Amino acid sequence: MTRREMAHWLGRAGLALSAGSLLDMSASAADAPITRPVAAPAAPAHSMEEYGVPTGPPQQVAMLVYPGMTALDLIGPNQILASLMNIDVHLVWKDRGLITTDTGIPIQPTMTFKNCPDALTVLFVPGGSDGTVALMNDPVVLDFLAQKGKTARYVTSVCTGSLVLGAAGLLKGYRATSHWAFRDLLPLMGATVVAERFVEDRSRITGGGVTAGIDFGLYLASKLRNEKYAKAMQLGLEYDPQPPYHAGTPAGAGTDITQMMRALYEPIWNGAQAAAVRAQKRLS
Amino acid sequence: MTRREMAHWLGRAGLALSAGSLLDMSASAADAPITRPVAAPAAPAHSMEEYGVPTGPPQQVAMLVYPGMTALDLIGPNQILASLMNIDVHLVWKDRGLITTDTGIPIQPTMTFKNCPDALTVLFVPGGSDGTVALMNDPVVLDFLAQKGKTARYVTSVCTGSLVLGAAGLLKGYRATSHWAFRDLLPLMGATVVAERFVEDRSRITGGGVTAGIDFGLYLASKLRNEKYAKAMQLGLEYDPQPPYHAGTPAGAGTDITQMMRALYEPIWNGAQAAAVRAQKRLS
Repeated sequence: MTRREMAHWLGRAGLALSAGSLLDMSASAADAPITRPVAAPAAPAHSMEEYGVPTGPPQQVAMLVYPGMTALDLIGPNQILASLMNIDVHLVWKDRGLITTDTGIPIQPTMTFKNCPDALTVLFVPGGSDGTVALMNDPVVLDFLAQKGKTARYVTSVCTGSLVLGAAGLLKGYRATSHWAFRDLLPLMGATVVAERFVEDRSRITGGGVTAGIDFGLYLASKLRNEKYAKAMQLGLEYDPQPPYHAGTPAGAGTDITQMMRALYEPIWNGAQAAAVRAQKRLS
Repeated sequence: MTRREMAHWLGRAGLALSAGSLLDMSASAADAPITRPVAAPAAPAHSMEEYGVPTGPPQQVAMLVYPGMTALDLIGPNQILASLMNIDVHLVWKDRGLITTDTGIPIQPTMTFKNCPDALTVLFVPGGSDGTVALMNDPVVLDFLAQKGKTARYVTSVCTGSLVLGAAGLLKGYRATSHWAFRDLLPLMGATVVAERFVEDRSRITGGGVTAGIDFGLYLASKLRNEKYAKAMQLGLEYDPQPPYHAGTPAGAGTDITQMMRALYEPIWNGAQAAAVRAQKRLS
């Protein structure tokens, strides 16, 4: 549901929609008709109020993008937040040159730190690996986040993005989470770790690893709009997950695979730990 | 798990990893130690064979990118496929100018149609809305897909990407799926609709709407490598989904929300239907 599509819908908000236009595709779709029933007797019209769309100027959302970030950390919540009505979502970085994600996707930031608005509804940081550790040691990035985080309504992250929030001093005294293999580092920066899919503590909402961004994003949509809007987004994304294995947690994946992954992450974890220790000294 | 990280791991594949290096984070993580145990007695080493990594030249994967595409359709499977060892994933389009996704993300294609290899292991098409309908009517794109689809080991899609495969004649006589609101159009192009999360029929694997790409991607990883590798990917992505609502299908979301979404999609559905009818004539 892009904003353009939603605008189309709003254009018809006064129209009575036909209940007969609904085809139940959850039944056998193999023989589904390919033409739609014509308009039947009127059903109640939808309204912006019903979906919790606020009036006033568009809400401002700043999503950090950076070299080596994990694209899915960003795109899960972006696909949801940037589809809301009456919102402006910016991809912010130091400059507008292309950055490349950890799987090689070249993305252009849409706004520089300098031009980022002060009054943010959402400040968001995605995770990654080496690139994320670099951010934990980067005073320009940390100053930007600390500054915007002071006034943002929601200070948020997915995956190891919370380590960057922590290094910026934004999680001191908050409950928070991160990717399962890295969340043990959060206490170094004054946060209390909670091993949940996402953790909300006052203005902070931090998500677990990578795919947690979709659950986090839908929850945030329900806060920014309402449950009905969030449910519509979930339907639009056909978010009815059917993971092929029960391997999304260390307990589910088992010792052998978890051990391999920890070995894989070890140099990144070591770098993140060193950065967290530096942050601890800075913040104390 | 990026390729770089995986390469690091392979560099240590001969090393005996310590079972003691595994911290069970599924237990209470709030008081998890922040230092790791030192190496303990040797445990069995991991090997490339154990994770099904093929020898020989890197497999070639072409993922179509285009204006108006839905970023999450691409990024779900990309985050998985592009992280596999011994694979080259290309983002292909007519030229290398920036394209903008439906939520405003500027992405640079990494390869032109002209330079795309012939012997593809995977050909992949993400979905979208108006931009996807435009592709269904674009002979340059359809010719490219038809050509590469002849020899690709797997011809794949997520969401309405299957409508483009259909318009290119690549789903004639195959079982397939698409986004719930659009899959009823597939029979016009000779496919049999199956209402499942993703559908495999010989060389064709088509996913449902948007987030189905993660389930599809993990399944494809298990085919390209093995189950153990796919499980490691699932753990790396912390894919233990916890949707806030049961609203990912029309049945779960209920009549009111589904009706609103169908009204929203109506102009796009109409455009896709017209394109599918054109394709039907062309393909018959």
